[in-house]
Amino acid sequence: MADEVVLLDFWPSPFGIRLRIALAEKGIVYEYKEEDVWNKSPLLLQMNPVHKKIPVLIHNGKPVSESLIALQYIDEVWNHKAPLLPSDSYLRAQARFWADFVDKKIFEIGRQLWATKGEEQNAAIKEFLDYIGVLERELGDKPFFGGDTLGFVDVTLISHYRWFLVYEKFGNFSVEAEHPEFIAWVKRCMEKESVSKSLPEQEKVYDYAMLLRKKFGIE
Amino acid sequence: MADEVVLLDFWPSPFGIRLRIALAEKGIVYEYKEEDVWNKSPLLLQMNPVHKKIPVLIHNGKPVSESLIALQYIDEVWNHKAPLLPSDSYLRAQARFWADFVDKKIFEIGRQLWATKGEEQNAAIKEFLDYIGVLERELGDKPFFGGDTLGFVDVTLISHYRWFLVYEKFGNFSVEAEHPEFIAWVKRCMEKESVSKSLPEQEKVYDYAMLLRKKFGIE
Repeated sequence: MADEVVLLDFWPSPFGIRLRIALAEKGIVYEYKEEDVWNKSPLLLQMNPVHKKIPVLIHNGKPVSESLIALQYIDEVWNHKAPLLPSDSYLRAQARFWADFVDKKIFEIGRQLWATKGEEQNAAIKEFLDYIGVLERELGDKPFFGGDTLGFVDVTLISHYRWFLVYEKFGNFSVEAEHPEFIAWVKRCMEKESVSKSLPEQEKVYDYAMLLRKKFGIE
Repeated sequence: MADEVVLLDFWPSPFGIRLRIALAEKGIVYEYKEEDVWNKSPLLLQMNPVHKKIPVLIHNGKPVSESLIALQYIDEVWNHKAPLLPSDSYLRAQARFWADFVDKKIFEIGRQLWATKGEEQNAAIKEFLDYIGVLERELGDKPFFGGDTLGFVDVTLISHYRWFLVYEKFGNFSVEAEHPEFIAWVKRCMEKESVSKSLPEQEKVYDYAMLLRKKFGIE
């Protein structure tokens, strides 16, 4: 039986983008189904009844939810090409640690960057840049977090990049000015078609952030 | 070289307890180092500089932090005995999903059960029991979440059990009255020495919760 792969996703979602990148890296053909997150489809509610969230990867009818778990599933099932996690257990634990760091820190502080103002926003900018600094130090001299090739942490982190530009615009700061090595890493990632073709258009993401600010009564 | 294993831990921590259970299941001899979480040791700050939290597993001098990541590391390195994660990729993704569910839902709502009162506490009790119901349905007719043997989800969840009794006492409710099958699972887990010997004394946990309530000015 040929593999049937479906991705329930929402175009600006960093959590969805990372699965798109991984599937592209692995060369997997799949059906992309756009969800309306304000009006969820019966399929989404059936496939992810616990969290009711995108992304959901459906492989031969069986769902995998939570993006880092789906990312590991993709890496394990299609392990013939572009391995994301290292084969060494200790390095694998480290990769999981940094991907978890991205999920626990970057998304939440990112939301504060576009959804707050004044002192609160200034504190969030400082915290955000601190986290980028921590990640930049972890990257060190390596081309990618995964070493010489795009790995688990790279895919997890670069999926947030389109939003970084939104944060910079609303927060009036520059990641590149503070952390040029980090942006050099971004550029290396963007040279890969699996990444550049999986990211939505910059302007669309900015417009969407504007829409969210209006929806939540900010400004 | 013989393996040198050290666990930086704090006795009432569910996140530490799960590593104690896993190490016991695997028959690993290790040095337990109790941390004072209000006055962290230089070793803890050195081994987990990012989060500065217990538990940290130190294997031949190299640290692994974040309990679910350390649990997977233990399972991968000492895979000769008592496998925690299934060998099938899909079942492994499912086990990771439910362990993640426990971490995202049970701990946070649990804190609300001993740290709030009145309406807020009642809402938390309802939510907590809903989650237990979800887990009970997932368990179904199986003796353990891992099937016939203690698995990844069992170890992750049972580590919270001593705190359940604290929640019941402060919230004046009974998990067993609402979810007897869940408590039957607890009892099956407790029959295992790896579990029962890894859990702290019930009364000590209750006294510690009382101390936390005082510290945070509750009552």
